Amino acid sequence: MRRRTANAAEFNAIPAHVYPQTLRRETAGEHRGEVTIAGVPLTEIAETFGTPAFVMDEEDFRTRCRRLAKAFGGGHFVHYASKAFLSKTVARWVMDEGLSLDVASLGELQVALAAGFPAERITVHGNNKSPEFLRLAVSEGAELIVVDSLQEIEALSTVAGELGKTQDVLVRVTPGVHVDTHEFIATSHEDQKFGFSLASGAAHHAAMACHTADGVRLRGLHCHVGSQVFEAAGFALAAERLLGLWKQLLDSIATLTDEHAVDPSQGVGSDAPTLLDTLDLGGGYGIAYMPDQEALDVEEVASELKSKVRKAAESAGVPEPTLNVEPGRAIAGPSMITLYRVGTVKDVEVADGISRRYISVDGGMSDNIRPALYQAEYDCRVANREVAGELLPTRIVGSHCESGDVLVNDALVPEDVRPGDLLMIGATGAYCYAMASRYNMMTRPPVVRVADGEARLMIRRETIDDVLALEE
Amino acid sequence: MRRRTANAAEFNAIPAHVYPQTLRRETAGEHRGEVTIAGVPLTEIAETFGTPAFVMDEEDFRTRCRRLAKAFGGGHFVHYASKAFLSKTVARWVMDEGLSLDVASLGELQVALAAGFPAERITVHGNNKSPEFLRLAVSEGAELIVVDSLQEIEALSTVAGELGKTQDVLVRVTPGVHVDTHEFIATSHEDQKFGFSLASGAAHHAAMACHTADGVRLRGLHCHVGSQVFEAAGFALAAERLLGLWKQLLDSIATLTDEHAVDPSQGVGSDAPTLLDTLDLGGGYGIAYMPDQEALDVEEVASELKSKVRKAAESAGVPEPTLNVEPGRAIAGPSMITLYRVGTVKDVEVADGISRRYISVDGGMSDNIRPALYQAEYDCRVANREVAGELLPTRIVGSHCESGDVLVNDALVPEDVRPGDLLMIGATGAYCYAMASRYNMMTRPPVVRVADGEARLMIRRETIDDVLALEE
Repeated sequence: MRRRTANAAEFNAIPAHVYPQTLRRETAGEHRGEVTIAGVPLTEIAETFGTPAFVMDEEDFRTRCRRLAKAFGGGHFVHYASKAFLSKTVARWVMDEGLSLDVASLGELQVALAAGFPAERITVHGNNKSPEFLRLAVSEGAELIVVDSLQEIEALSTVAGELGKTQDVLVRVTPGVHVDTHEFIATSHEDQKFGFSLASGAAHHAAMACHTADGVRLRGLHCHVGSQVFEAAGFALAAERLLGLWKQLLDSIATLTDEHAVDPSQGVGSDAPTLLDTLDLGGGYGIAYMPDQEALDVEEVASELKSKVRKAAESAGVPEPTLNVEPGRAIAGPSMITLYRVGTVKDVEVADGISRRYISVDGGMSDNIRPALYQAEYDCRVANREVAGELLPTRIVGSHCESGDVLVNDALVPEDVRPGDLLMIGATGAYCYAMASRYNMMTRPPVVRVADGEARLMIRRETIDDVLALEE
Repeated sequence: MRRRTANAAEFNAIPAHVYPQTLRRETAGEHRGEVTIAGVPLTEIAETFGTPAFVMDEEDFRTRCRRLAKAFGGGHFVHYASKAFLSKTVARWVMDEGLSLDVASLGELQVALAAGFPAERITVHGNNKSPEFLRLAVSEGAELIVVDSLQEIEALSTVAGELGKTQDVLVRVTPGVHVDTHEFIATSHEDQKFGFSLASGAAHHAAMACHTADGVRLRGLHCHVGSQVFEAAGFALAAERLLGLWKQLLDSIATLTDEHAVDPSQGVGSDAPTLLDTLDLGGGYGIAYMPDQEALDVEEVASELKSKVRKAAESAGVPEPTLNVEPGRAIAGPSMITLYRVGTVKDVEVADGISRRYISVDGGMSDNIRPALYQAEYDCRVANREVAGELLPTRIVGSHCESGDVLVNDALVPEDVRPGDLLMIGATGAYCYAMASRYNMMTRPPVVRVADGEARLMIRRETIDDVLALEE
């Protein structure tokens, strides 16, 4: 059983590690008792931009970029996974901070390019890249394409040929390592749509196919071990397994006697069909959604992984590769909150003499599907004032016509929360706006960016006219 | 274990009850072997409108409306639950067919009104109706508002007073009946955000609050027992319980001695504070997603419910109320398919010597979240030709950067399905487009309407420019 809020004072005290770094409850002054972010009261944001609204702390986002860049020895090695949350604005922040970018669809690539993000710092993912997507990535000069099927290698070779280019690629490998928060399991086979199996030899086969394909240059291997990972061990095991394959590949290439033969002892130059120098261990770095969680320590993991890769390379007798990583949630997640207005407050008798309070807010599963989809847990606090009274078992629900429309399943909330109060939910920067729908014709909230005492619109609220405009 | 397709011939034979009524595989002529809908080849639709695309059979949708209207004694009693799928076009189809409409949000009401749907045939739902939503509903003259909290009754009374109107309402009751496909459970208390508990007395209290509130006229009771219901028993028990409350309400009103006293033996006229005449048993009528399912028999259920309500009213000694129902999925669900283009086809070894085929299509969890969200099952077929070969255990997956992006978890599909084929998934009319997101910047597919040999755009495809236009 998770440790719970003990009293109203504890409910009013905001757990700093779950919320954006500039967010605080004011203890003095005009806005005493209110929550501010980058100096802007959330009451003012609600007034100006309406509710529900996503509110993003620019300094928090940038600080996380910098911290990761430092931990991994340079921003170039840290690829922000744009699927977590992407807009032109955040793409520019990522660019400013010197990080690289991951995209996983044509649309993500288009948004990144529209923001002016340099293609030569973009890595391209996807299990089913369309011809149009591949063509755009190659023609714009994407740094790396992570190939995911033999058909793709063939298609890529064709596209590269047509465009007169050589495309650098990584091979996505399923190394049989799955991490679920604190535990990892090691298997051989993997039953998933992504990648090539290490155990079955499919990964070796695919990498050799890249080596021999015209217009494709093999640069290394990629894997992804899980989401919300809190320890380095799973990444380290995956790295070790991938470096074993790495060694096999160098040996296989060295023994080729046909036109694809190269001498790996000569080093493989930039015009060679293979330049094995990049190991990408993906993302999945855990963040604190709840007060009793602690985010993955990125400095510790970076140092452990770098040392592990160095040793594994030494013992495999291969040159130490560059280590790339792909955090998305770990950058965007804690930088955002969702601000809701409390509507209906209802006490429901769930057994004789036992009640649960239902607090309805003006958003719901359309702006955050994660509790319904993954049983994700979130922390909530009242933003416009300090609240008092006994703690009641409370469920925070949305306004959708569906009983599964739950945002926080089981919280302890002081009893005097009332209609009109502002409720904020923390750590909603990743996979909330990105997965938002218009279910029940509840259109997407705006994303408001705050920095240095100023709140500005990043993405405007959708209106019913946006919906109607799609219909002829 | 579900009965599965036995061979390629069976895979090519389309289960008519899962797909729109005008859809068939042609056995002769120019399009022999291809699937057509209302006479239009799906290859042609894919060519004209691209993939992925939703394709909606107008005749199928209208036929279901008519069948329900007939079964329940008139379209007025059948309220299409617009949350399943709403556009101006389908609102007009519902209107043409003489049905009523349910809306569950301000946005749904706005779309209905934009389509010219008469407010006096609209019932309004929602656990957290905003002041703006209530005001629009009352000012436009919505037929019924289903009240869901004491705060709402108060707010409604205020709004009605301000607008100089009297608003007819139903009280949403939680009767302690939950139906999950073939089984129902009867409890007393209910732990959910909707409604007022029958067992705790909350429902009686709320109904009396409606009776005494100015500007609010109590017209009856409402309940909703579940989704994908295949038998009448659960509805019947709920009706019986609600009519017990009905009797108590008439008695309570009769014993009032204050200014709210009315004599129920006089009948309660249109200017009385209460005119108890409507029992709404909600929706949840099951449809066939898979070949071995049979949709709820609506004629049978209608006749059983009408007879049950008549008898329960007699035995409770109350006048027989009008019976309203709210099917959404049962109208829209089977009328639509989703058409995808096959991309990557990959065989993955999942254990030594055992493989699973992964077929990737150009959509995914952004256009159909139901498999990931509810573990919903769907049927899929190849639309552009008859396919041959051995059946392979196959998973149909989307193009999203997420391993849970699955459309059909476990199908048996002939081995010669290849990249470029068109795959269709049946019964996607309800809660697919309605819950669609732009995850991974994969924008919403179009909805194409087909009738009488003609395919026309109902809702256009979203583009990346629609996404970019939201950002300042």
